[in-house]
Amino acid sequence: MKIAVLGPRGTYTELAARRHFGKKDFVYYSSILEVVKAVEAGNVDAGVVPVESMREGSVGETLDALAWCDVRVTAEIVLPVVHSLLSVKGARLDNIKQVLSHPQALSQCREFLRTKLPKVELIEVSSTARAAEQVSSAGSLEVAALGPKELAEIYGLEVLVENVSGDEENLTRFFCLGREKVQRTGRDKTSIVFYTERDRPGILYEILGEFAHRQINLTKIESRPSKKVLGDYLFFVDFEGHEDDEIVKEALEGLRKKTAMLKILGSYPRRF
Amino acid sequence: MKIAVLGPRGTYTELAARRHFGKKDFVYYSSILEVVKAVEAGNVDAGVVPVESMREGSVGETLDALAWCDVRVTAEIVLPVVHSLLSVKGARLDNIKQVLSHPQALSQCREFLRTKLPKVELIEVSSTARAAEQVSSAGSLEVAALGPKELAEIYGLEVLVENVSGDEENLTRFFCLGREKVQRTGRDKTSIVFYTERDRPGILYEILGEFAHRQINLTKIESRPSKKVLGDYLFFVDFEGHEDDEIVKEALEGLRKKTAMLKILGSYPRRF
Repeated sequence: MKIAVLGPRGTYTELAARRHFGKKDFVYYSSILEVVKAVEAGNVDAGVVPVESMREGSVGETLDALAWCDVRVTAEIVLPVVHSLLSVKGARLDNIKQVLSHPQALSQCREFLRTKLPKVELIEVSSTARAAEQVSSAGSLEVAALGPKELAEIYGLEVLVENVSGDEENLTRFFCLGREKVQRTGRDKTSIVFYTERDRPGILYEILGEFAHRQINLTKIESRPSKKVLGDYLFFVDFEGHEDDEIVKEALEGLRKKTAMLKILGSYPRRF
Repeated sequence: MKIAVLGPRGTYTELAARRHFGKKDFVYYSSILEVVKAVEAGNVDAGVVPVESMREGSVGETLDALAWCDVRVTAEIVLPVVHSLLSVKGARLDNIKQVLSHPQALSQCREFLRTKLPKVELIEVSSTARAAEQVSSAGSLEVAALGPKELAEIYGLEVLVENVSGDEENLTRFFCLGREKVQRTGRDKTSIVFYTERDRPGILYEILGEFAHRQINLTKIESRPSKKVLGDYLFFVDFEGHEDDEIVKEALEGLRKKTAMLKILGSYPRRF
């Protein structure tokens, strides 16, 4: 079974995919859109993409790809994001002069950096996996990376200090993508995206009425620029229930009449 | 007049601030939160922060800072994001071997890179301004940066190719921040954030009813993780009108009864 994930090796997306699928044949792509397109084209059996994090909010690139590509959300995965300080074998904390990581990871670990490594130079790179890769190829005892401890094994590094990202928990939600519909389990969630043709007062209110009148609980709503005009939005909504449930079918029927575009991204077992 | 912006020199945030305020005394901060806190503390007279882009969606760090810091939105600024290829003096396009930029800028210029520079190595850095800074300090004829052409003057570079970011327009919206309320102009917008205590079906519907029943047009709605529990959301809403308008006052009064927290971020002249 081939699973598309975001590269390079050891990204949080790959960790989420391993958590869900176990050890599989992972195929690495350099962008979220490429992961989604690989699933759509049938080049892989499934894909995993990040969709939102508790601290950073939604991942725009994922929402856009889901709106316009022909794939189905088949599961949600929730993973805590915990960073460790990684370095080459033999390095010591008091010799570290540079720390590399993604800006968000550096920010999440700022308490640790401020108190334990106040004099180091912080270098921002594009992902935690990329940071580990660079520390590994530099081979210096003076540089370290912040990222998931699993990167140590992948890039031949050592965990110098474990879990330095502070007390605040940072859960990240990922979607598994496939091409087939998932059967209802009785405790499901459905994700949809829609677009309203005319921007008139009350249209979103009327649309949400289709859910409220049927006691369907919304778990998320987000407007996102449609990329045509600033101020013109797509709406991404998650709610409890499966697209095969009778009341969900009725609500979606009502939505279809009120929207210019409605797409069911998928129904999948609810994880939180 | 001192204006807080995101550094280093030449970020799109600084360009937006120059567009709005003209040439002022800019103070550079390394994060959005620091910009907001500088305004809150009165260390500067105003600040400018990015709030959403047509392609990438909302800037989570800005929304979070606005929700919890005591500042007012005093204006919105809309700026097109257009990248050029920048290099040291004397460089030629066919000698370029590396291109540095922010991942989003590299992605926006991919058509240009694919057709005109198919063999270059792409290097992701944390901002377009940082890319220009690195190209400048490297001083090599073989490296170039993608970013706004204004960076050329700031970092002593030349514009090798202007506007390489493709046809698709990418507008970005910025907020000006201050500490005082802005008077109504008759064509205003208001931004609020609220939080509902209990997650029950229909609560958001009831809240939007306060606007719909008064024919107040919503221009944006976004749920954002509250950072307490994944699935627990703050709602950011923009609508047409000024907080001193009678019907807006009534709607906000209604909202206050239905929400656990309601904060008016500000009313300001509408730009789009």
